[in-house]
Amino acid sequence: MDEMKHVISAKSFSREALEALLATAGEMRVIQAQGGADFLSHKVMAALFFEPSTRTRLSFETAMLRLNGRVISTENAKEFSSAVKGETLEDTIRVVAGYADVIVLRHPEIGAAARAAEVSSVPVLSAGDGAGEHPTQALLDMFTILTEVGRLDDLTVTLVGDLLYGRTVHSLVYLLSLFRDVRIVCTAPAAIPLPADVIAYAKARGVHVSFEPDLSRAAKKTDVLYQTRVQKERFPTVGHYEAVRANYVIDTRILSELPPHSIIMHPLPRAGEIDPGVDRDPRAAYFRQSHYGVPVRMAVLKECFTSN
Amino acid sequence: MDEMKHVISAKSFSREALEALLATAGEMRVIQAQGGADFLSHKVMAALFFEPSTRTRLSFETAMLRLNGRVISTENAKEFSSAVKGETLEDTIRVVAGYADVIVLRHPEIGAAARAAEVSSVPVLSAGDGAGEHPTQALLDMFTILTEVGRLDDLTVTLVGDLLYGRTVHSLVYLLSLFRDVRIVCTAPAAIPLPADVIAYAKARGVHVSFEPDLSRAAKKTDVLYQTRVQKERFPTVGHYEAVRANYVIDTRILSELPPHSIIMHPLPRAGEIDPGVDRDPRAAYFRQSHYGVPVRMAVLKECFTSN
Amino acid sequence: MDEMKHVISAKSFSREALEALLATAGEMRVIQAQGGADFLSHKVMAALFFEPSTRTRLSFETAMLRLNGRVISTENAKEFSSAVKGETLEDTIRVVAGYADVIVLRHPEIGAAARAAEVSSVPVLSAGDGAGEHPTQALLDMFTILTEVGRLDDLTVTLVGDLLYGRTVHSLVYLLSLFRDVRIVCTAPAAIPLPADVIAYAKARGVHVSFEPDLSRAAKKTDVLYQTRVQKERFPTVGHYEAVRANYVIDTRILSELPPHSIIMHPLPRAGEIDPGVDRDPRAAYFRQSHYGVPVRMAVLKECFTSN
Repeated sequence: MDEMKHVISAKSFSREALEALLATAGEMRVIQAQGGADFLSHKVMAALFFEPSTRTRLSFETAMLRLNGRVISTENAKEFSSAVKGETLEDTIRVVAGYADVIVLRHPEIGAAARAAEVSSVPVLSAGDGAGEHPTQALLDMFTILTEVGRLDDLTVTLVGDLLYGRTVHSLVYLLSLFRDVRIVCTAPAAIPLPADVIAYAKARGVHVSFEPDLSRAAKKTDVLYQTRVQKERFPTVGHYEAVRANYVIDTRILSELPPHSIIMHPLPRAGEIDPGVDRDPRAAYFRQSHYGVPVRMAVLKECFTSN
Repeated sequence: MDEMKHVISAKSFSREALEALLATAGEMRVIQAQGGADFLSHKVMAALFFEPSTRTRLSFETAMLRLNGRVISTENAKEFSSAVKGETLEDTIRVVAGYADVIVLRHPEIGAAARAAEVSSVPVLSAGDGAGEHPTQALLDMFTILTEVGRLDDLTVTLVGDLLYGRTVHSLVYLLSLFRDVRIVCTAPAAIPLPADVIAYAKARGVHVSFEPDLSRAAKKTDVLYQTRVQKERFPTVGHYEAVRANYVIDTRILSELPPHSIIMHPLPRAGEIDPGVDRDPRAAYFRQSHYGVPVRMAVLKECFTSN
Repeated sequence: MDEMKHVISAKSFSREALEALLATAGEMRVIQAQGGADFLSHKVMAALFFEPSTRTRLSFETAMLRLNGRVISTENAKEFSSAVKGETLEDTIRVVAGYADVIVLRHPEIGAAARAAEVSSVPVLSAGDGAGEHPTQALLDMFTILTEVGRLDDLTVTLVGDLLYGRTVHSLVYLLSLFRDVRIVCTAPAAIPLPADVIAYAKARGVHVSFEPDLSRAAKKTDVLYQTRVQKERFPTVGHYEAVRANYVIDTRILSELPPHSIIMHPLPRAGEIDPGVDRDPRAAYFRQSHYGVPVRMAVLKECFTSN
């Protein structure tokens, strides 16, 4: 390997690098449908999860196994040792980098993935660091849009729900900013808006950002309706939460407003903000979106071991 | 695959289908002794355990690995996400069905496996759903009888212990009912008898069902002595429990009553209801029974991916 | 396999057997650097951990996977069944020995590994039994010394810290006692000295054992400085602990006393007893030491399946 290929932040991708990765993911989708390939036969991936995220862990592990790689795994990484509570993350990484060829890290603290990359002798792939980033989620979101809508330029993407704390939408905005004629519509309760720095990042790169608090009206003219969870904890009272949340549920009524070739996305899990009645509509892309995680992570893993 | 081959209930097997499966399990036993085969080289099995059952999980995983398949696994499925407690089982299954080629599901609720099969795009194999069924346990029980006793027709099977709550004996009765000249003897405390609907099911299919509360007398004329755990919680007081339980322990005294070619079975784990002094007797088949789980589950997995 | 090759105690190795194993580990190191080999293609290893020890588990699993073996694993072995708390270790082992070709066992009770070996039909490799032994840790320690210092005879090894409760140093002393002209220096607080029986074992085999409570002076003339954790619980008060502990920290000041070709070892994890400022010194061997665990365990696993 000429250089260490960590994946820590969506911000580090160039348009070229992202397009190459998504093209590889497209190839991986074909390989996945055939059962897999032998690209990583002699490689071991360590999945170090300091908090449970079974969906992400199983998606990464499946990706590695489909490439004939091997997996060592723990969801219990914060009890890394029975003898000492509180070994530093850095020491854990230094040890595991001597076992595995690539480390997938999930950690509750912002910046953990960058700290791990700093000391690791093998590539570190972030599987989410607290309220920070979750870059492979953003990559699979982009792959979903490309595969389902057919393009990444000239798009209207409507972000719905919790745009303040939802790290997946921030990473998505960073990647969308690489493309031309992108219009981002923010459909969020006043209490949880898209942060000013994220808006500034997008605008500085030519993205058009607008605000439409009414979900019905926003749904009428979008290519992508990207729904997120709104969490109770963000509101002063449960009553306040319930009142606000009801206005941001995607149900069959919203479906009737949506253009025919648009799609509905959601990082999952959902907790009521998309009505199950929507699931059978072909525009309901959220389960397919979760499935695209496998070929996208196959592509990320393959690129780790590909020379430039 | 022509049709989806879920394994949810012992009741869904025909005699022909069961005999074919047990024949395949016999072949798998040979393959296992040789270390394995490559039948499922490009397949991934997901083991989703919503409660721990390490024995069953490791048995399924071994079966998959012996066929050169790959495994993704969690014993922590009820914390499927760190973000949302209480994602529906259906959503979890829809996601994982996009990763894996077959799902093994353990869940504490009756009917969970059927609900999962309803929404899954890949086969669902039940590894037990609460007080419901545990179909692969019943299959390995039948394989044990066939392998150790040599036949499935013309058998006396004595069921001992908790016949009310013991789901494994219910599933076993369903499968035994497919055969001719089967005699089931119930040797159970009055408080925990075989349920009327299970008895009716067996009788309607020509099984002879009788009752012999005395273990010593029951042991004298049986082909299979199938022991189960009696749980404290089933009795009003610990004293009542202790008094009843003492009458249903298999020890060397019972061994002296048992016919020479009979076998003792137990789904394991045991908690005192078989004395360790019995273990060395060749009729003590319970550890071999647990080992047969691997070839039986190899057969179940192989059939999932075999066209009719 | 002609005979069962359990690994339960460092005491059971002869010099010849140990040297053969370390030579194999050397070959495994080359194979590891090449990605692995197919020696154990048809073998399944069960990792049964009755307490978490993620480092040891992942090291063993990596070793098995690098040899193309398969792994079934639980960190939750004490909840082996959801139905019965307290199945005997013996019953668990009898069941799993019917699934896997080799069992790696971690257990909190002294003697657990020997009890498991007693009933197992496949090799049992101890991954630590409480305050008892952790034999593969001792093997990797010896491999570290051989690889980094270049010899196992004519050595000065200084043991630092908790020599009373630190099981790794006891196992290390047993293995060092197989060699010629070994000098062991004990650099320990008075409250936690090397036990008399361990000293007697070494002396009976010709090892020179001496005492040097001053770390600075001990560091001046050693080949190996083997640091261990000193645990708070060993002292009457936290104040007492802090006072003692400060005298046994390896920092850059100690580094300046150490001979140029010596090495610093530590079984890890550390909790302050080696200053991170020491890490970049080439004599800081503790992370390399942890990495050597993989080839050493590859060698142990390979030998399990090699006929004499």
